[in-house]
Amino acid sequence: MNRQELFENIKRKKSFLCVGLDTDIKKIPSHLLNEEDPVFAFNKAIIDATADMCVAYKPNLAFYESLGIKGWAAFEKTVKYIKENYPDQFIIADAKRGDIGNTSEMYARSFFEHLGIDSVTVAPYMGEDSIKPFLVYPGKWVIVLGLTSNKGSQDFQFAVDNQGERLFERVMRISQKWANKDQLMFVVGATQGKLFADVRKIVPDHFLLVPGIGAQGGSLQEVVDYGMNAQCGLLVNSSRQIIYASKDTSFAKAAREQTSTVQQEMEKLLKSRKLIG
Amino acid sequence: MNRQELFENIKRKKSFLCVGLDTDIKKIPSHLLNEEDPVFAFNKAIIDATADMCVAYKPNLAFYESLGIKGWAAFEKTVKYIKENYPDQFIIADAKRGDIGNTSEMYARSFFEHLGIDSVTVAPYMGEDSIKPFLVYPGKWVIVLGLTSNKGSQDFQFAVDNQGERLFERVMRISQKWANKDQLMFVVGATQGKLFADVRKIVPDHFLLVPGIGAQGGSLQEVVDYGMNAQCGLLVNSSRQIIYASKDTSFAKAAREQTSTVQQEMEKLLKSRKLIG
Repeated sequence: MNRQELFENIKRKKSFLCVGLDTDIKKIPSHLLNEEDPVFAFNKAIIDATADMCVAYKPNLAFYESLGIKGWAAFEKTVKYIKENYPDQFIIADAKRGDIGNTSEMYARSFFEHLGIDSVTVAPYMGEDSIKPFLVYPGKWVIVLGLTSNKGSQDFQFAVDNQGERLFERVMRISQKWANKDQLMFVVGATQGKLFADVRKIVPDHFLLVPGIGAQGGSLQEVVDYGMNAQCGLLVNSSRQIIYASKDTSFAKAAREQTSTVQQEMEKLLKSRKLIG
Repeated sequence: MNRQELFENIKRKKSFLCVGLDTDIKKIPSHLLNEEDPVFAFNKAIIDATADMCVAYKPNLAFYESLGIKGWAAFEKTVKYIKENYPDQFIIADAKRGDIGNTSEMYARSFFEHLGIDSVTVAPYMGEDSIKPFLVYPGKWVIVLGLTSNKGSQDFQFAVDNQGERLFERVMRISQKWANKDQLMFVVGATQGKLFADVRKIVPDHFLLVPGIGAQGGSLQEVVDYGMNAQCGLLVNSSRQIIYASKDTSFAKAAREQTSTVQQEMEKLLKSRKLIG
């Protein structure tokens, strides 16, 4: 999916929501545990209940890997289900990978070739040759960790170098030389609020993947005020707040209601910025 | 496994070699492709041929994930095989993970609880709360990327902050506050040569996991000269040079010969430093 298609989907659905499929078998409704594949059954129900109000899904690999082979199977089935039934969805493998070149090639092969996923999140610490192998796939995206939503973002990402530049700024400035804005996005946490203005000075046109609203406490209004650009430029993720909206048999309905609340807020914000009529 | 046990294994085997199981199905001998699980069959043969001359095995997750469910199964079988047959081996899941707290918890559960692996490599970019969840497992280790072996290490790891400290130094200085040297190691690439001296100023006693000899061109002599401490403090990894020493039916024998060459060099170096008699 290219940038223009993504923007068209956002306008058509009046939503820039990404639903995070952080599916923890210990947190899903207990009646699903009788299913052959409880994690996939949960994901399928959540996807069917939310697909018309979001533009992206983001399964976080950790939740699947923690179940070993069964989890990996649930992950693959989930990706296949989205691709077959909702081909307009942008799929993000939230993997935060990054390794030396020949190893990153293996990850790229796994996510892009084997599974046909649209994008993968990567960690920047190891530099250019850890990210380049992901960029040889036309139409596929790399989403580099820029400024994360967690408290630990303070430990290294704000280190100021001898040119007065903070590490997250250096990461965004340098890594955008490796790919154009049709293959590269950045993760910027919603909890960083006004810092979106500093981010936009460096990457005015790129899409940003924004975790951290909901359970982590970031403000959607603030993200839009400081981070939205002329093509929206935001994919705002919500995971726990949506997928665990209820723990009983009506969990999918509750997830839909929660999604609808977020979508309506997003619609208002898109209108206020005149990106939709 | 604790630090003292690891050092005892090094002295007993006269080796501080870690064999990297970067098993690529496209590179293994073709006769193995008839096996039910070619990757596991390859690993089993390599392990049986090398276990008496190394102290650790490091499967890199990327190579297994690239095969999807089958790859994950081969990874789990490999770990189980090592634990059952060579319980004195230190197993490193080379995963380079790192995510927000609740997600890192899932990875920790996967590697330590579900698989019983000794250690996992993690990326430092997201800071303390991305690493802490791995530290709640007694006797398990976190191996933080410090100074990596690849060219891209130049892009961010050498950024000098306004106190004159390079990022890799800051990472090591700060992250050693999060755990003691019985749970924490650092990755330092063999290709960094004399910089091991700078690393040892910050972390004199910690074990270092050292990739980059062999195919990547790092020098074992230099690593020892600048990086070895009184408890050895080094696990030097070799992957491609050992496991792909030959591509014919005698691949395991060739791997053993290559391992023996490295082990003998290590034995000399341990003697020259008077760590063994």
